[in-house]
Amino acid sequence: MSVLNNIHSPEDLKKLNTQEKEALAEELRNFTLETVSKTGGHLASNLGIVELTIALHSIFNIPQDKLVWDVGHQTYIHKMLTGRKEQMPTLRKLNGLSGFPKAEESEYDCFNTGHSSTSISAALGMARARDIQKQKYFVVAVIGDGALTGGMALEALNDAGCSKTNLIVILNDNEMSISKNVGGISTFLTKLRTRKSYKKSNAYIKKIVKKLPGNMGDGIIHFVKKMKYGMKQLILPNMFFEDIGFTYLGPVDGHNIEKLEDILEKAKSQEGPVLVHVLTKKGKGYIPAETNPDQYHSTSSFNLITGESLKPKKDDYSKIFGNELVKLASKNEKIVAITAAMKDGTGLKEFAKQFPNRFFDVGIAEQHCLTMAAGMAKEGLIPVVSIYSSFYQRAYDQVIHDIAMQNLPVIMCVDRAGIVGNDGETHQGIFDLAFFNLVPNLTIMAPKDFEELRQMLAYSITLKKPVVIRYPRGGEDDITFEKHESIEQGKAEILREGKNITIIAIGKMVAKAEKVAQLLEEQGVSAEVINSRFLKPLDEQTILTSLQKTQKAITIEDGIMQGGLASQVIELVQNHQMHAVTIKTFGYQDEFIKHGSVAEIEELYGLTEEKIAEQVLAMLGRSNAKAKALTNITIS
Amino acid sequence: MSVLNNIHSPEDLKKLNTQEKEALAEELRNFTLETVSKTGGHLASNLGIVELTIALHSIFNIPQDKLVWDVGHQTYIHKMLTGRKEQMPTLRKLNGLSGFPKAEESEYDCFNTGHSSTSISAALGMARARDIQKQKYFVVAVIGDGALTGGMALEALNDAGCSKTNLIVILNDNEMSISKNVGGISTFLTKLRTRKSYKKSNAYIKKIVKKLPGNMGDGIIHFVKKMKYGMKQLILPNMFFEDIGFTYLGPVDGHNIEKLEDILEKAKSQEGPVLVHVLTKKGKGYIPAETNPDQYHSTSSFNLITGESLKPKKDDYSKIFGNELVKLASKNEKIVAITAAMKDGTGLKEFAKQFPNRFFDVGIAEQHCLTMAAGMAKEGLIPVVSIYSSFYQRAYDQVIHDIAMQNLPVIMCVDRAGIVGNDGETHQGIFDLAFFNLVPNLTIMAPKDFEELRQMLAYSITLKKPVVIRYPRGGEDDITFEKHESIEQGKAEILREGKNITIIAIGKMVAKAEKVAQLLEEQGVSAEVINSRFLKPLDEQTILTSLQKTQKAITIEDGIMQGGLASQVIELVQNHQMHAVTIKTFGYQDEFIKHGSVAEIEELYGLTEEKIAEQVLAMLGRSNAKAKALTNITIS
Repeated sequence: MSVLNNIHSPEDLKKLNTQEKEALAEELRNFTLETVSKTGGHLASNLGIVELTIALHSIFNIPQDKLVWDVGHQTYIHKMLTGRKEQMPTLRKLNGLSGFPKAEESEYDCFNTGHSSTSISAALGMARARDIQKQKYFVVAVIGDGALTGGMALEALNDAGCSKTNLIVILNDNEMSISKNVGGISTFLTKLRTRKSYKKSNAYIKKIVKKLPGNMGDGIIHFVKKMKYGMKQLILPNMFFEDIGFTYLGPVDGHNIEKLEDILEKAKSQEGPVLVHVLTKKGKGYIPAETNPDQYHSTSSFNLITGESLKPKKDDYSKIFGNELVKLASKNEKIVAITAAMKDGTGLKEFAKQFPNRFFDVGIAEQHCLTMAAGMAKEGLIPVVSIYSSFYQRAYDQVIHDIAMQNLPVIMCVDRAGIVGNDGETHQGIFDLAFFNLVPNLTIMAPKDFEELRQMLAYSITLKKPVVIRYPRGGEDDITFEKHESIEQGKAEILREGKNITIIAIGKMVAKAEKVAQLLEEQGVSAEVINSRFLKPLDEQTILTSLQKTQKAITIEDGIMQGGLASQVIELVQNHQMHAVTIKTFGYQDEFIKHGSVAEIEELYGLTEEKIAEQVLAMLGRSNAKAKALTNITIS
Repeated sequence: MSVLNNIHSPEDLKKLNTQEKEALAEELRNFTLETVSKTGGHLASNLGIVELTIALHSIFNIPQDKLVWDVGHQTYIHKMLTGRKEQMPTLRKLNGLSGFPKAEESEYDCFNTGHSSTSISAALGMARARDIQKQKYFVVAVIGDGALTGGMALEALNDAGCSKTNLIVILNDNEMSISKNVGGISTFLTKLRTRKSYKKSNAYIKKIVKKLPGNMGDGIIHFVKKMKYGMKQLILPNMFFEDIGFTYLGPVDGHNIEKLEDILEKAKSQEGPVLVHVLTKKGKGYIPAETNPDQYHSTSSFNLITGESLKPKKDDYSKIFGNELVKLASKNEKIVAITAAMKDGTGLKEFAKQFPNRFFDVGIAEQHCLTMAAGMAKEGLIPVVSIYSSFYQRAYDQVIHDIAMQNLPVIMCVDRAGIVGNDGETHQGIFDLAFFNLVPNLTIMAPKDFEELRQMLAYSITLKKPVVIRYPRGGEDDITFEKHESIEQGKAEILREGKNITIIAIGKMVAKAEKVAQLLEEQGVSAEVINSRFLKPLDEQTILTSLQKTQKAITIEDGIMQGGLASQVIELVQNHQMHAVTIKTFGYQDEFIKHGSVAEIEELYGLTEEKIAEQVLAMLGRSNAKAKALTNITIS
C-alpha cells in the first residue's frame, strides 16, 4: 500500500508515525528515481535529502513557517510533499514544474533560489521582517556545506550571528558541492564530523566541569575559568559557530527521521540563531549515485537499472575547451586553469588530472576566483578561468576592479552562455555579453563552432589582455563551416557574400545566420553573413562596408539585445548617419526567460531560422505568402 | 634632526635602530597630519598603521617581496617610505599621487586596490604564481578587521587555508571598518583580543600538556587526547583560523615596532599560510581622530589644531536622503533602512538613531545586504538600501537573481553615483546606470536636485517594484529649479521648451542642461530641456515628440554613455527610423576615469556647459567664432 499516494499536503504527513514515514521515504526515493531517470534533473542531492525534508515538514508548519532552500535544486521531495507529485513528470519542461523553488508555483515555496549561498541572507531578512511586524513563525534556511563556502553565505552568518533573531540554519553536510568540496572550511567541517565519537564521553566531562568550584581564590579562579573554557571546546564540538553567535546543534544522522525530528524540535525551542549540523549522503539509496554523486549531480534521462545515460554523450563546448587547454598547457607552462566548483561541468577534469599543480578549484567562490586569477596574471602566469555565464554575475566587481582596471591578462571563459534550457531563468546566461561589454579594456569573443573556440583560446593566450570567450551549453550546430580564418583582434569573418541583406551574428547564432541565408537563397534573396567573432572591439569597418552595399541588416545573438550585438550595430549605424539603413534585431528582450528546452525557447521567442527568414522577407517587401511558407520548411 | 628626510627607500629604513624608527614614526605621523589637513584624504587609518608599515618595510624586502594592501587607503605611510614623500602634497589631486596603491605609480605597489576585501585573493594568486614558477619571495596581505567580513575575503581565507602555500596575512585589527564594525566575526575577534591576558599563564599550561603521557590505555588515551585538544584552545587563542588551516600568530601590539618586527620574523619562518593578528588604534596619535575615527576616516581639509573642517559643511544628497527617509519612516512602519558599513556616508545616522530596530548595518557585505533586503521585501517590509555606486558592482547577481527576478520592492539608493572625484578610478560611479539598465523589472531614476530626490523617494515607497535611485556625491547644483512636477512612472519632465535642439539629461546633469540652454539662449538658440527622470522605463513619447520638432538632440549624463541614456536615445531614434535626426552624446567613453576634482574631470572630458554649448552650436552650423567665444563665458 502506498503511503505517498495519500500525501496531498504536509498536513497528511504530520499524521504518520515514524515507521510510515520511513516507508514514505522509500517511496519518495523510488518516485524520484523514476521521474528523474525520465526527465533528467538533479538526482543525487534530492536522494540525499529525503529524510530531512520529511522531518522538516513534520516539525514545522509550512507555509506559515518559512523554509528557504539554498540553491533549490534539492526541492523535488519538498515539491512532492506539497501537492505537486502529479506534476513531477513535467519537471523542468516548458510550462511544467521548475527544477527550483518558485513562489509563483506554490505557496510552499517562500523564496526563489537557483544560485548558491543566498538562503541565510534571505531567511535573515524574513526573520527580521517578522520581528519588526511582531509576528510569530519560524524561518529556516537549508544550506549545503558546499554553498557555505560562498562569500555571501559567510557574510550572512556573520550578520545573523550577532542578530539575536530567531533563525534556524540547517547545514546539510554531504561533503560535496557540485564537485568534491574544497577549502579550509571543508577541512574544518570534517573535524566537526569526526568529533561525533567524542559525544558520549562528553556527558561525563560535562558533569565534572559542572562540579568544579567557582568560588576559589583569585589566581586559581582564573585557571579554573580557563579550564572550563577549554572543556567547553570538548563538549561543544563547534567553537566557530558558537563564537560568532550561533547555538550549534549536532551533528545528527540525516537519514534518521526520528533523530532529525528531535533535533529540529530542540532547535525550535532555542532563542537566537541556531545552526543544526545534519550529515547526509548524496545519492543515498541509489548505488550508482552514491558511488558517483558528481555524475548524478545533474543528469539527463538515464537507464534506472544500469544507471547509464539514455542520451549518447556527444562532444560539447566544455569538453573541446578542456581538451584544447590541455594541449596549450602542455606547450606553455605559464597556463593555469581555475574554476569555482565547476570542474567537471566546465570540462577541466582532464586538465586537473594532467596538471594537478596548475589547476585550482576554489570552491563556490566566484569573487575570490577572479581576483586570485588577477594576482596570478600580475605575477606572469596566464590564468584561464572557466565559470558558467550566470555565475559571472557574482564576480562583476572583481572583473571590473581587479582585472579590467589593471588590464591584467586573465582569460575568462564563459560556459553555459545564452539559453541553457531546463534549469530556467536563474541559469540562463543571457546577460554576459551586455554586462561585459560595459567594461573598459576587455576583449570579448564568441566562437561559431568548436574549431573557432580552439582558435580563440590559442589566440587569447598570446593577447596579453583580459579576454572573455563565451560559448553555449552543449554541442556545436549540425552545420559544418568550411571557413576558419585566423583570428585577428577585432576582425569579423565574412562567411557568405550577398547583396540584399547583411546578417550579423555572433557565437552559436552564426550557424543560425547561415541557415537563414540558405533559406533566403531558396527564395532568391542573396544574404551576406558576417560572423562578428568579436563583440568588443566590434569590427565596425566590415559591418559598415557590408551595409553600404545591402542597406539592410539583421543581428542575431543568444542573449539580451540591449547592450549586446543589437545595440552595438544600431549605434554604429546611427553614429555614421547611415540614414537609409534599416535594421532588425533578433535575441531576447528585457525579460527573464523561463525553463524549457533550448529549441522550445528559441521557437517561443521567434529565433528559429524559419521565423527569422520570414521576418527578413517581410523587411525586403517579399510577399507574405512566400514568407509564411517558410515556417513549414525544415532544414536537414 | 629629521630621520624622515633621509629615508628615500626602504633600504634607508632598514639601517635604523628601534629608537630611530620610533622617531621616524612620530615624524611620519606629523607629516601625514600636515599633508592630509591640507589635501584631505583618509586620515585615521593611516595614523593607525604607521608602526606596522615601518615594521613591514624593515622585515620584508619590498618590492621583491609582495605587499598587497587591502582597500589601499591606508598606504600614505607606505608611499612616504617608498620615495613618494615629496609628492604627498599632490595627493588625490589631478595628475598627482593617488590615494590608493597604483602599480603605474611605483614598483612598490604590486597590486592596485580600492574596494575592500580583495587582498587575500590577490596575494594567494601571487603566491601560487610564485610556487608554479619556482621563485622565492614572500607575499603579504594586509587586511583590516572590517574588510575581513567581506564575503570574498572569507572565500579567500577558505581557499588559502588548505593551500599549503606560504602566504602571510596581516590582520590589522582596529575594531573598525568605515563605521563601527558589526557582526559575529567582530564579536569573535573581540574574544581573541581579550584572550591576550591569558597568554602568560598559557606557557605554564603548555608545559603540563606536553608532559601528559601519550601512551596510556585505550580509554584513557582517548580522554587525554581530548584534554590536549581542549587545552590547545587555551593556548592557541584562535581555533577558527587554525581549524581552517592557518598558523595563527598574535595578537600583538600594533604600535610597538620591536614586537611587530619579532612577530613578522616569526611569520617568515612558518610553512604554509600564516595569520598575524595585529592590534592597532585608528587615528593613533591625533586626539580628534582617536576620539572620532569615523569622522576622520575620510576627511576634507581641516584645521590641525582644532580638528575642524576648513570647508563649510553644506547639505549633500546623502543628508537629504537620510532626512527624508526619517520623515517617511515616521509615517510608515514598514520602511526599514539598510547599508553595508556606510551608515554615516549614506546619511543614515539619524535614521539609525531614531529607528534603531528598523536600521541594519550588515558590515562590508554588499551581497548579503541586497538579498537580506529581498527577504524583508518578500515578507512585506519596504527595505531601502543605500550603498555607494561602485560597491553595487559587488551585488550585481543579488540584484538580478534575488530582487529583480522575483520583482521584489526593494528600493536601491545609489549614493556617490557618477564622478566622485579624488578617490579616483576605483570609486567612480560611472557604470551603475548602464549595468542596472540591463536588468529586467527595474525602475531606474535620478533626481535633478534635492527636492526631486525627496519626490522620488516618496514615490518609490508607493511603487511596490524594485527601484534604483542614483545621485551624486556632494550637493545640488547652484541652479534653482522652479518646476517639480509630481513623479509619474516613466514620465520625463520638460523644463524648458524650445525649437532648435532637444537637450535630454538625467540626474545632476539636468542642471548642466539648463545652463547649456541659458548659454544657447544668449546665442539666439532655443533649446528644449528634458529632464529624463527615468532611465527605465524611458519616456520615449516625450523624447520622440520633442525630436519631431527639433530634429536635433544631445544627451548628457554623469556616467558611461554606452548602455546609458546616450545608447537609449540613439536606439530609440533608430528604432523609430527618424532618419533626419542627429544626436550628439555627452558623458564618459569606454575607459576608466582617474582621480581629480569633479570640476577638473568634467573639464577634461568636455562636460562643462561651455564646451557642450560650443558643440551644440557646431551641430547647428553656427559660426565657429561664436562657438569658441562661449568657452570664455562663465555663468554666475
